[in-house]
Amino acid sequence: MIGDGGPPALDAEFTVRALALSLSQMLEDAGRSGFVVGLSGGVDSALAAAVAARAVGPQAVHALFLPGPGTPEVSADNARSVAEHLGLALETVPLAPLMDAMPFPAEAHRRRGNFTARLRMAILYDRAAALDALVLGTSNKSEMALGYTTLWGDMAADCWPLGDLYKTQVLAIARAIGLSEEVVGRPPSAELWEGQTDEEELGFTYRDADRVLYTYLEGRHRPEEIAGHAAEAALVERVLQRVREQAFKRRLPHVPKLSTRTIGHDFHHPRAWRGPA
Amino acid sequence: MIGDGGPPALDAEFTVRALALSLSQMLEDAGRSGFVVGLSGGVDSALAAAVAARAVGPQAVHALFLPGPGTPEVSADNARSVAEHLGLALETVPLAPLMDAMPFPAEAHRRRGNFTARLRMAILYDRAAALDALVLGTSNKSEMALGYTTLWGDMAADCWPLGDLYKTQVLAIARAIGLSEEVVGRPPSAELWEGQTDEEELGFTYRDADRVLYTYLEGRHRPEEIAGHAAEAALVERVLQRVREQAFKRRLPHVPKLSTRTIGHDFHHPRAWRGPA
Repeated sequence: MIGDGGPPALDAEFTVRALALSLSQMLEDAGRSGFVVGLSGGVDSALAAAVAARAVGPQAVHALFLPGPGTPEVSADNARSVAEHLGLALETVPLAPLMDAMPFPAEAHRRRGNFTARLRMAILYDRAAALDALVLGTSNKSEMALGYTTLWGDMAADCWPLGDLYKTQVLAIARAIGLSEEVVGRPPSAELWEGQTDEEELGFTYRDADRVLYTYLEGRHRPEEIAGHAAEAALVERVLQRVREQAFKRRLPHVPKLSTRTIGHDFHHPRAWRGPA
Repeated sequence: MIGDGGPPALDAEFTVRALALSLSQMLEDAGRSGFVVGLSGGVDSALAAAVAARAVGPQAVHALFLPGPGTPEVSADNARSVAEHLGLALETVPLAPLMDAMPFPAEAHRRRGNFTARLRMAILYDRAAALDALVLGTSNKSEMALGYTTLWGDMAADCWPLGDLYKTQVLAIARAIGLSEEVVGRPPSAELWEGQTDEEELGFTYRDADRVLYTYLEGRHRPEEIAGHAAEAALVERVLQRVREQAFKRRLPHVPKLSTRTIGHDFHHPRAWRGPA
């Protein structure tokens, strides 16, 4: 039987502790001294930063606010309030000088937006190099399943602490640990251009998408089983079409196999490996 | 028994045809109309471009030359001669205006170099979006095994046609298919700063590294078996240390597992999937 519900409610305190433990172990394995995180003023980056602050202490988490052409003033206010709430140093680096050096046709708002997302990644990695830090990704499971992310932009990071949490779980946990309603209650937006909102662009809400995704990914039900139970057939198809079509954002580049042992196919090292080879 | 040789000599014509077939299938699966490639003036990008031109015809391959602070004039000459030889349109986009907008401390040449590599990626992806194309990566197997690449920079692409060819195999195939000695014979350089060469920075030659890598990856021999046969113990250790320490560049970001089916762990879609879900 297929339930009508979406992803389960998680114990917020337990989840944050588990994620914090994972981040602190990762930092120790990597031999780095802290995390760099881009605060957008939205809930994902706020929760990722909160987990990192819990993991390694706020003094080891360097927050950046990187306003671009699509960033409204309220995002700056939210980024500041999140940083203050968590006790993080906040550095602001406006992207305007870089964007001015790379002109785009007026109608190319998606291209400009994706360029902005990749610039943010480049700046976060540069600060991480300067500070001997790792870059904290803020992607959640719904975004990655739907491919609602800029390839090698916001998804390019050293870790995804929220990568196994659906968006609706992120929202619930963020509320439960006391992040402000100004941050948690805002309509989700990639802010790659003015007025963009995730749900308008996707054509469905995260609540609806998460119900389909959870039933599909974790319930392992087929689309025709999901349709009529967890969601309408048209919604199921729209969501799963994105899951299929955006699969390339969840993989490293394709390598044509020529040899007996190919990187990414049948040659893997564990990420952290301290012993002899 | 462990041979003293490095990776095997491949039939150049067969290899280029196999790679070209893979690229043309990939393009068809993706429903895109061509490839974008950054020509550095070096051998890897020249061979990748040659394979793409073979796959889909030179008119469907758009080449870019993206000179940065570490790019010497000979690279421009080589990029032009490769594009001409292959019949590709070549667009030059100097990075100077973007780099001027992002000042670095004078001594931070590695940070500046990595930023440059990530800018190149962002520009290649932007051109690919404008041209409905895929981004052709130029990373080879030696580079990826050694992690001699900028994370989310030059390694960030839609495919790695040379990803299963060791550097010494790339050189041999490039010579065999008639790429010029000016390109093939140059000392390999990432050109992230002036005077940088791969082999000086790595502390060993690709010929030596490939002997160790091949014996380790494909011969599946242990370091102490390789030492004394294929290479000196100190070289074996230096090469394999990089293989271990740079493993993070061959993986997507780490996700702490919370659910029964996690993206990148136990949920994978094939890259191309045309049928119903």
